[in-house]
Amino acid sequence: MKRYRNGEIWEFEQEMPGMGNDSTEVILGLDGGTTSTVCVCIPLLPFSDPLPDPLPVLARAVAGCSNHNSVGETAARETLEQVMAEALAKSGCSRSAVRAVCLAVSGVNHLTDQQRIVNWLRDIFPNRVRLSVQNDAVAALASGTLGKLHGCVLIAGTGTIAYGFTEDRREARAAGAGPTLGDWGSGYGIAAQALTAVIRAYDGRGPQTNLTGSILQKLGLSSADELIGWTYADPSWARIAALVPVVVSCAEAGDEVANKILFDSVEELALSVKAVVQRLGLCGEDGKDSFPLVMVGGVLEANKRWDIGKEVIHCISKDYPGAFPIRPKVEPAVGAALLAWNTLMEECRKDP
Amino acid sequence: MKRYRNGEIWEFEQEMPGMGNDSTEVILGLDGGTTSTVCVCIPLLPFSDPLPDPLPVLARAVAGCSNHNSVGETAARETLEQVMAEALAKSGCSRSAVRAVCLAVSGVNHLTDQQRIVNWLRDIFPNRVRLSVQNDAVAALASGTLGKLHGCVLIAGTGTIAYGFTEDRREARAAGAGPTLGDWGSGYGIAAQALTAVIRAYDGRGPQTNLTGSILQKLGLSSADELIGWTYADPSWARIAALVPVVVSCAEAGDEVANKILFDSVEELALSVKAVVQRLGLCGEDGKDSFPLVMVGGVLEANKRWDIGKEVIHCISKDYPGAFPIRPKVEPAVGAALLAWNTLMEECRKDP
Repeated sequence: MKRYRNGEIWEFEQEMPGMGNDSTEVILGLDGGTTSTVCVCIPLLPFSDPLPDPLPVLARAVAGCSNHNSVGETAARETLEQVMAEALAKSGCSRSAVRAVCLAVSGVNHLTDQQRIVNWLRDIFPNRVRLSVQNDAVAALASGTLGKLHGCVLIAGTGTIAYGFTEDRREARAAGAGPTLGDWGSGYGIAAQALTAVIRAYDGRGPQTNLTGSILQKLGLSSADELIGWTYADPSWARIAALVPVVVSCAEAGDEVANKILFDSVEELALSVKAVVQRLGLCGEDGKDSFPLVMVGGVLEANKRWDIGKEVIHCISKDYPGAFPIRPKVEPAVGAALLAWNTLMEECRKDP
Repeated sequence: MKRYRNGEIWEFEQEMPGMGNDSTEVILGLDGGTTSTVCVCIPLLPFSDPLPDPLPVLARAVAGCSNHNSVGETAARETLEQVMAEALAKSGCSRSAVRAVCLAVSGVNHLTDQQRIVNWLRDIFPNRVRLSVQNDAVAALASGTLGKLHGCVLIAGTGTIAYGFTEDRREARAAGAGPTLGDWGSGYGIAAQALTAVIRAYDGRGPQTNLTGSILQKLGLSSADELIGWTYADPSWARIAALVPVVVSCAEAGDEVANKILFDSVEELALSVKAVVQRLGLCGEDGKDSFPLVMVGGVLEANKRWDIGKEVIHCISKDYPGAFPIRPKVEPAVGAALLAWNTLMEECRKDP
């Protein structure tokens, strides 16, 4: 994405016909992660009708990282502003067409984070535009529930988090604290345990495992002690999590150590969901109420015979038979947009 | 330590009386860690006599980090050269008095590391000076065995490693691979597990524990979810490992979670030693041969009623009753110097 001078981001609006008189009204949904930021622009769908399938998406724009913890406040703001402008320009709309913006971004953990970001969104959009800022897990939940904040989402990619809402908007989360604080079920957690198993086999602290040959081959290394230099050279979580498919292959081929790592990860992931369900009482008093369980992320998707997601659902269903698994058909940015749409609809019903 | 211009480090030698005719001969021992570097200068003790107690140390100098992985080759070299010059100047000796230098430095894992460092030491000292470069764990072993390379050392501070030698110079190590690769018995490992236990109790994935109150109070935080920001703000291992005393206090006060963490750490640390002893056959064929077990580092030292070091020894002795625990009375830099002295003595006996 090219760099803009101050104000230049929105210059495209001046070249638009009928500026300020758009008949289309739109919603922007943003999903800002640590690797990329996606913005979609959807039309304001009628509140009376069921949602069309497939959902109409007017435009989609992609940019880099917008986590303020990673890139700093200024860069995060610029990235978000640019990606919104690009989505609007592609839609042929100006800001005057926008009814609501929902920004779901990683690293938003407190009300103070939310308020700060809402404040600068307010510099861009006029007062009548409804603004909301959420943790990115909330957009993932909404991508499965088509905008309704109810149920629990489990995200397991490089990291992992479980996040849930009751219908009366109480919320709870579990995990999502990073590897130092024990997110062992994550892709990073699985891969780090596999690397650890290789080191332990090498220095005599653990059983031999086929993970050794498979991981060394994958990384182009010739001996397990070279893994020490490999991890020190670049300890980025995503680089380590990229080894998950190797662990899955070894488990499928019958390696006991790899199988134990995956079963432990299933238990950890299920435990995060159970903790959220328990605290929110999503399962009702008899423990059997139905609730959406939205499953998102590479660890839960990309498997073949050894299906981590399926095992996690199995493990949760034993305790909570009402868990209703959903694999979202739309991306989290669309979830964010639907969340904004849903909120507008609720406000409209209260105060028509 | 002040900065020197090229060559200026050794200018003090020109002001010395009798330059090149020193009657004293000395040995330099260096212990270069990631936080500091220590250099001691000891006199060349007679090979025929038993070592005096206490050992005479002519001078001691301290500088910052000399791990080439952390500060780069140039800075590491400059630090090491300065600290050696300072120790010699304080001893009233010039380089011509030096018979041997033993440099034990963290981050030295391969023969190529050793050879590269020996090469630039050779630029400083003439050919007749005996130079050796070792992993810093080797100096710690020698600090317990007074220079003899035999037995196993267990270091448990921020990190942990077990390193052993047979009398015929076969060597083996276990752990020492960093937190990503499962050094769970280390100070970092203990503290990270305690932080994890606090998060798990907070979000409903684990039992309640007194670690929560004690750790939050120690860090001046008011809620467990603030730990996420605290660890992201500065993930340095030493900062996290500094929480070990809090874990020990909680365990002493009867907290079950804290006790489990410490017992797990004891098992991990003992397992590292056992792996080295097993691979080297230090215990002999009947498993009962005596061998030195040198114990070094804050995790093994600083405890009161809950004595991690004592428990580790107990756990090792069950399998290897010949393990002879030693808590060194001298620091690793002196161990490095004694290692050099020991090597000179062996060479002298072979070729008197």
